[in-house]
Amino acid sequence: MREQIWAFDQVSKEELLKRIDSLKDSMVKNQIDFGVLFENVDKFYFTATIQKGMVVVPVAGAPLFFVEKSIERARMESPLDIIPIGSDKEIRSILEGRGILGGVAGLELDVLPVSVFERLKRIVGFSRYADLSPPIRQLRMVKSPFELTQIRKSGQMITQVFEAAKEVVREGAREIDIDAALVARGRKLGHQGVLRMRGINQEMVLMTVQSGFTGAMFSYGDVPIAGAGVTPAVPGGSSLKRVERGIPVTIDYGGAYNGYITDETRILVVGELNERFKKPYDCAKEIIEDVMSNARAGVDCRDVYSRAYRTAEKAGLTSYFMGHGKGQVSFLGHGVGLEINELPVITGRHEQILQEGMVVAIEPKFILPGEGAVGIELDFIIRKGGVERVTDYPFEIVSLP
Amino acid sequence: MREQIWAFDQVSKEELLKRIDSLKDSMVKNQIDFGVLFENVDKFYFTATIQKGMVVVPVAGAPLFFVEKSIERARMESPLDIIPIGSDKEIRSILEGRGILGGVAGLELDVLPVSVFERLKRIVGFSRYADLSPPIRQLRMVKSPFELTQIRKSGQMITQVFEAAKEVVREGAREIDIDAALVARGRKLGHQGVLRMRGINQEMVLMTVQSGFTGAMFSYGDVPIAGAGVTPAVPGGSSLKRVERGIPVTIDYGGAYNGYITDETRILVVGELNERFKKPYDCAKEIIEDVMSNARAGVDCRDVYSRAYRTAEKAGLTSYFMGHGKGQVSFLGHGVGLEINELPVITGRHEQILQEGMVVAIEPKFILPGEGAVGIELDFIIRKGGVERVTDYPFEIVSLP
Repeated sequence: MREQIWAFDQVSKEELLKRIDSLKDSMVKNQIDFGVLFENVDKFYFTATIQKGMVVVPVAGAPLFFVEKSIERARMESPLDIIPIGSDKEIRSILEGRGILGGVAGLELDVLPVSVFERLKRIVGFSRYADLSPPIRQLRMVKSPFELTQIRKSGQMITQVFEAAKEVVREGAREIDIDAALVARGRKLGHQGVLRMRGINQEMVLMTVQSGFTGAMFSYGDVPIAGAGVTPAVPGGSSLKRVERGIPVTIDYGGAYNGYITDETRILVVGELNERFKKPYDCAKEIIEDVMSNARAGVDCRDVYSRAYRTAEKAGLTSYFMGHGKGQVSFLGHGVGLEINELPVITGRHEQILQEGMVVAIEPKFILPGEGAVGIELDFIIRKGGVERVTDYPFEIVSLP
Repeated sequence: MREQIWAFDQVSKEELLKRIDSLKDSMVKNQIDFGVLFENVDKFYFTATIQKGMVVVPVAGAPLFFVEKSIERARMESPLDIIPIGSDKEIRSILEGRGILGGVAGLELDVLPVSVFERLKRIVGFSRYADLSPPIRQLRMVKSPFELTQIRKSGQMITQVFEAAKEVVREGAREIDIDAALVARGRKLGHQGVLRMRGINQEMVLMTVQSGFTGAMFSYGDVPIAGAGVTPAVPGGSSLKRVERGIPVTIDYGGAYNGYITDETRILVVGELNERFKKPYDCAKEIIEDVMSNARAGVDCRDVYSRAYRTAEKAGLTSYFMGHGKGQVSFLGHGVGLEINELPVITGRHEQILQEGMVVAIEPKFILPGEGAVGIELDFIIRKGGVERVTDYPFEIVSLP
């Protein structure tokens, strides 16, 4: 046997087929006759590979997993049966032969570009279509035991990276130097090298370090703390700003093991935390502790959000809660999984009941205009009796000499 | 003045307006009445910011640059005049007020998801539309002097990273360890942290290191050397494979300064290069040297490709040229700029005349099935009299003790 070159767990064929069956159930409810999976992350969820091809899932009968390139590698990576094709132009006649064509096609309309859609229309052959992404995102929201294992392994990367942060953060270090050293640390632990965020114009750096006013900068992103970045071409993430004594350094990092993302934030400070950040920090801690005491399966996300908001209100900090001014975002947390913007969204805006097996990143953050940010972000697995943490690393602020 | 937190050069308003004027010329030729720019990279090219919003370019009159979030930051980043909006729902009445609606809308159909397209149809209000991406990609193919400066600065990152590689590559090191150390090195030099590749399902890691059979693995990507990666979730890039004596280590790295990407490959070897890789290496070197002697503005890309192919043929190596078996790709190189898959494509398949100011990555690579790969990749600015290199670092193989 050859030396070990990969670090991942193999999902079983049974689990993949179970996921596809659940998709079929959703399709029936949504009056979709066959689903066409094209996007990498969805394809990975249902087949365990992102090799070039597409999956056609009829409501009745077995899924057809067409692979164009690389067939060899798809066979190695996926436990599902594969239909090798030379070109996607072969797909239509195969589908016609099995009587699958006709009816409503389910497509990933939130990510499928118009020109790819037009091509699929010709290649697969459909006239009526509906959005398959909402059902897929609903399915992916609740994680299986296998997925939770991947997420815990992803969380172990975060634990080790935050452990290493104590050695790297120091007065005068630039945000980008801390970022470079810690991202390298994660990569050596087997980090997959990218984080995925669903949708056009969405992209993620692996880590963002802020050390003062850069943490309070406005941004285009739907995030409380975006950072300055080094260029408007990528206007977020770590910058050349240097760490100052007493000013909180926030490190927001995404672990990623076998596709599964975790997303946590810690605060470090050189010397004693500057007085004006103490109350916001205490409030963030109180919110996290409250979530750990009160969140569980059956609770409405609106209640999680409003408890947090009330805690901020009691402390007189709502103007700084989850951003300031036009930079304020309307959520306290979000689902994580194969993408960093999964469901559920923890917001006061609409009902969403927490379910056993969801994984959410809860991120109470306070942004002081022109000064900086403090915030804690922890990932939780939702259980019937409460929440289970994904990482082991303490969430309290770390003071460095 | 606050400390330096960014590392980028500011493009001038004049240059942005000139780019927009060129776009208008293309729109006239393509019978498009107004363009709608939505995608981050295109928006950055025409406005110097990717803050949330959209640009409407009528064939006659000034462009309308709507910004929703962050208005403050867009004002800081872009020298263009901004129309602040609270929501994109305000756009339609502004356009109607200026008489812009009606006619054919030009949209980025290769990247715009169907659901975003449907929303734009309502928000902007158009019934007829055409693809604006081909004209945009044509425009972006030829770089301005400002852009060439950014590309040279991006290339300086590559030079320094390859310089550092000599200290990092050693027998027994894992591909991912080399990757982690060198990517960190680039980040400390101000690398923006992401590389962009246009299209759905396209993503790029910053570096890929291969040290033997991992360099010969098939992949879904349209690349000669993809690598194993650490998981099928990201099935390319560096793996846990260890460097062996005599087996070439290929390092393919993308610099990125202020949005502009460079993309080069070098070979290092511990000890003496194993005999079976010598001829392919010599052949890759001969091809690169031939390109340096013969490519220039006015030359057809087909000739560049076919000269390289004939060199491989003379050496009896066409079976391994740019891949092996089904893994072979049909190009010798590609354009680089704000994205890593820009025009032109250096292929034998269709006519494309090299023009002054194009920037191309030329990458003769040979893949020996089950054994490994050798290859050199250099970026060139196309000039009237020949090609100009983007990086300073020598392209010859580096032997380490």
